[in-house]
Amino acid sequence: MTRRRVLSAVGATGGVGALLRAMGVLGFAPTAGAQDPAYRAPRLSDLRQPRGPRKRVLVIGAGVAGLASVYELRKAGYDCVVLEARNRPGGRVWTVRKGTVETDVDGHTQLARFAPGQYMNAGASRIAPDMVTLDYCRELGVPIEAFSAQNANAYYVYEDGGSLSGKPVRHRTGKADMYGYMAELLTKATNRGALDQELTEADRELLLDFLRDWGDIDTSGEYTGSERRGFVVPPGAGERPGVVGDPFPLSDLLESGLGFRFSDEFDPFEAMPLFQPVGGMDRIARALVDAIGEHRITYDAVVQSITTSGAGVAVVFRGPDGRSRTERADYCICTIPPQILKKIPTNFSKAVRNALAAPVPVRAGKLGIQYGRRWWEEDDRIYGGTTYTDLDLTLVEYPSWGFHGKRGIIHGFYNFDAEAERYGDLSPAARLSRALSQGEKIHGPKFRRDVEASFSVAWQKTRYSMGGWTTWPGGSESGPRPGDPNYARLLRPEGRVYFAGDHLSHMNGWTAGAFLSARKVVGDLHARVVATG
Amino acid sequence: MTRRRVLSAVGATGGVGALLRAMGVLGFAPTAGAQDPAYRAPRLSDLRQPRGPRKRVLVIGAGVAGLASVYELRKAGYDCVVLEARNRPGGRVWTVRKGTVETDVDGHTQLARFAPGQYMNAGASRIAPDMVTLDYCRELGVPIEAFSAQNANAYYVYEDGGSLSGKPVRHRTGKADMYGYMAELLTKATNRGALDQELTEADRELLLDFLRDWGDIDTSGEYTGSERRGFVVPPGAGERPGVVGDPFPLSDLLESGLGFRFSDEFDPFEAMPLFQPVGGMDRIARALVDAIGEHRITYDAVVQSITTSGAGVAVVFRGPDGRSRTERADYCICTIPPQILKKIPTNFSKAVRNALAAPVPVRAGKLGIQYGRRWWEEDDRIYGGTTYTDLDLTLVEYPSWGFHGKRGIIHGFYNFDAEAERYGDLSPAARLSRALSQGEKIHGPKFRRDVEASFSVAWQKTRYSMGGWTTWPGGSESGPRPGDPNYARLLRPEGRVYFAGDHLSHMNGWTAGAFLSARKVVGDLHARVVATG
Ligand SMILES: Cc1cc2nc3c(=O)[nH]c(=O)nc-3n(C[C@H](O)[C@H](O)[C@H](O)COP(=O)(O)OP(=O)(O)OC[C@H]3O[C@@H](n4cnc5c(N)ncnc54)[C@H](O)[C@@H]3O)c2cc1C
Ligand SMILES: Cc1cc2nc3c(=O)[nH]c(=O)nc-3n(C[C@H](O)[C@H](O)[C@H](O)COP(=O)(O)OP(=O)(O)OC[C@H]3O[C@@H](n4cnc5c(N)ncnc54)[C@H](O)[C@@H]3O)c2cc1C
Repeated sequence: MTRRRVLSAVGATGGVGALLRAMGVLGFAPTAGAQDPAYRAPRLSDLRQPRGPRKRVLVIGAGVAGLASVYELRKAGYDCVVLEARNRPGGRVWTVRKGTVETDVDGHTQLARFAPGQYMNAGASRIAPDMVTLDYCRELGVPIEAFSAQNANAYYVYEDGGSLSGKPVRHRTGKADMYGYMAELLTKATNRGALDQELTEADRELLLDFLRDWGDIDTSGEYTGSERRGFVVPPGAGERPGVVGDPFPLSDLLESGLGFRFSDEFDPFEAMPLFQPVGGMDRIARALVDAIGEHRITYDAVVQSITTSGAGVAVVFRGPDGRSRTERADYCICTIPPQILKKIPTNFSKAVRNALAAPVPVRAGKLGIQYGRRWWEEDDRIYGGTTYTDLDLTLVEYPSWGFHGKRGIIHGFYNFDAEAERYGDLSPAARLSRALSQGEKIHGPKFRRDVEASFSVAWQKTRYSMGGWTTWPGGSESGPRPGDPNYARLLRPEGRVYFAGDHLSHMNGWTAGAFLSARKVVGDLHARVVATG
Repeated sequence: MTRRRVLSAVGATGGVGALLRAMGVLGFAPTAGAQDPAYRAPRLSDLRQPRGPRKRVLVIGAGVAGLASVYELRKAGYDCVVLEARNRPGGRVWTVRKGTVETDVDGHTQLARFAPGQYMNAGASRIAPDMVTLDYCRELGVPIEAFSAQNANAYYVYEDGGSLSGKPVRHRTGKADMYGYMAELLTKATNRGALDQELTEADRELLLDFLRDWGDIDTSGEYTGSERRGFVVPPGAGERPGVVGDPFPLSDLLESGLGFRFSDEFDPFEAMPLFQPVGGMDRIARALVDAIGEHRITYDAVVQSITTSGAGVAVVFRGPDGRSRTERADYCICTIPPQILKKIPTNFSKAVRNALAAPVPVRAGKLGIQYGRRWWEEDDRIYGGTTYTDLDLTLVEYPSWGFHGKRGIIHGFYNFDAEAERYGDLSPAARLSRALSQGEKIHGPKFRRDVEASFSVAWQKTRYSMGGWTTWPGGSESGPRPGDPNYARLLRPEGRVYFAGDHLSHMNGWTAGAFLSARKVVGDLHARVVATG
């Protein structure tokens, strides 16, 4: 039920796990933080002829993987050039602002008419503290601020959920009731001796104590409501102690299914707090470009063929002037998403071509709606965070910046798979229209009022992306199944061409995967240059 | 176990609750948001002689209650003056910066040597989205940013906790394990039929489904660890799927008591997200002062006596020049904390004097430590949030601003009651020294390194406060017991003197209580003026 759950979690039973256990690392050790603590960037001094001619590396794609590759290679002085099909850097790190123009593969053109200063992160939007992406923000001096993934005041709205159907329930309310009942049930079961096999007498006492606090149940072990639900009349001054409402019946809560969303906040990369670059996610791409030098990048350069040989790599591209040209280099790092690369003529082996055909693109869509009034703050007291719904909007996201401003952009939907396809098949105007009628079921008529502008993206129909990210068949959402030969093949270069991107990591769909993949191929390439001169 | 739990929660069974139920408001209604939606500020046009002579109101105390009183009264044109004992506005809204000097009642003088731009909120520091304080931030144009109360990467550290004693456990890890085991136990009990009385067959199936997701237990219903704990080896690029550690045994977790901290995040006013003014909590006081005009406030004016009569109020104070003077007005709003006011000579009735003697001051302390390196971010990946411990530090708070900067200030302790007293009885230097040796047990030797400056406050020893806040005997932490006659007495004016402050609300220890109390007395006073001319 969660959006982007990393499902693979290798148990600590064999391999690395066994090793670490033997080293005493597992068990009591606090969990690891930094994603790549042992990384060592390539250095000029590693090279046999540090003053000799620089190796030339052609990087295809100015997304995170491509830009980070150049950034790291530059640390050892490599001569790098980048070819990028779009007219901007960032790839799926894409911040839409006033004036952004995009034409999708269906031929729908949108021009963003957002107010100055307003923006929408159409692709990547948030960073977990443990991610290497945050290290790059620090290293590059990109200011960050908190991103609220969760919000106790946001809603669960389930249409297909029994007696709670269509009733917006605040997160804090749904959670207080569910946890209260769970505490009550577990208390009863414990007192009835149903768990005597599992619990010592000491455990039982400690567990009962804990449950009283955790579920806010009364001394008789019953859950009868709690101020944790929020107040019906909030506490105030004078004789106004605050009034809490009656809990929802357990059966209704279970039937609604809202509890399946609680676990989102336990996800290793979605637990609070999360972060975002101040001013838009593309500040990361911008900072990388500034660090490596914009002159190294050719925009509007669509790669049309790639040929690797013993002597080097030759890449044909259609340049900004519409004419085809060839760029040559000693090595190439190709970050074109596999679903696109597989269709580009190359002299790659069959094994590589098969491997490129394996990843399955994921459909994903987002709609930014600019309102002239921040009604979600003023009326609903929702400052950032996400409403979860089984309406086809899936997620409604409120902005974690610009609080108390005159206007703001909410994500009217952020959805995936069938829901993303449904909206993606509509025209941009029809997407907005459908989203407004759905959103009204959550927020009432104000969802329709004060709309000033909108912009939507269907990633499966977005040129040079053709998908939000990819999954490996038989793998999890975050990475391939163990031993996947296609994945393994793309980790190795094809002649002088290396492959990089989030799809070559166990962090599919995260910029961190793209960064780590870049570091890996840069390391591999550099080791080869060091070894072969 | 929680820090500041509102314990009073009036059940929705009688009184207002019954009324609301009859109106159909309880039950399905989403919980209320804004704390004071029906508030109506006094208006000039309410007065019988809107062009007549203005009533003069003397406000004692330039804390939130006093400043907000003036701010609201000015909306109807009242002639207001403020006497404030300190040399600054804000009272317990106090942001300590480079150059702040404070001498406590023991005679210890501290000069804050923090770097420019660094600050510490020594008193109030955070605002919940439902609080009226946030409405004032919007109305006054005080920019806000997220405040992380919780952080999945912060630690639980319990010394007196069995086999986990002294081992820092990340929040995410402790929670994943506890929730995993709870899901397992509840699954077992349900399957054993121990809850057949409570659950229909349909409920049982839905509950079991939910528990699998919520606890991340396997299909056989066992909890064997989860990536939600965090990774021992984080997932990366190439063949690095991420390794999770073994769960802690349930008995150890229960014995440690760390689970008692989970409920902090369910508190109606502590659930994420929370907010803080950008640049320090005193920006709120500053904005109020700017709105009402600094010239209305006399600082260094210590009130020495208050006399109310049929004709007006006479207040004697020792002015900045050390000389006593008398200020007269038609009415007075007195916001001096009760534990101080009770010792000031007045002609108040015995009932009022008794009432002022009732509230019990709470001891509270905070220590700001400025480090030359943000090691909690760089090494521990903790960006904001709180570490909970049974060490006498109680809470260690990491700053929710200045991320990735060169330096930062953490709260080495934020504690209450006996722990606050222990530190408060030490000299500022000895407080730091003790805190460093305790903090080392959490963070290791780096807690001692790179210390650049520090500043501590013991609220029970702070002049003109003499306590962090107060509690009413027999009441909860947030307000008085129902029907408390002392509380009721102070809600009514004594002659021409009105009383205000967070202690006269059901939000003790929150600026929102002070704001709401100010609104209440302003309303009462204005109604009287309207009625009596
Ligand atoms: C909706 C959505 C939400 C996301 N949310 C998050 C998030 O919250 N946090 C997070 O960290 N990550 C998130 N991600 C994932 C993140 O955006 C990606 O993992 C990362 O940006 C991938 O970088 P990349 O360099 O591997 O690929 P890309 O960014 O796709 O870069 C590939 C580049 O190749 C170029 N290209 C393609 N074809 C050609 C050609 N023929 N010739 C020349 N150039 C070509 C493309 O234009 C592009 O610039 C999200 C992604 C999406 C779509
Ligand atoms: C450690 C701590 C943490 C807190 N955390 C939060 C938080 O996170 N969020 C939140 O919203 N609230 C918090 N609070 C509570 C908040 O600070 C108070 O509720 C609020 O500031 C009280 O305002 P007040 O005007 O009622 O009282 P005060 O701020 O105490 O104002 C009273 C004023 O009267 C003055 N005075 C006293 N004696 C005299 C005299 N003889 N003559 C003249 N003037 C006098 C004082 O100097 C003071 O300025 C915290 C408080 C503390 C101490």
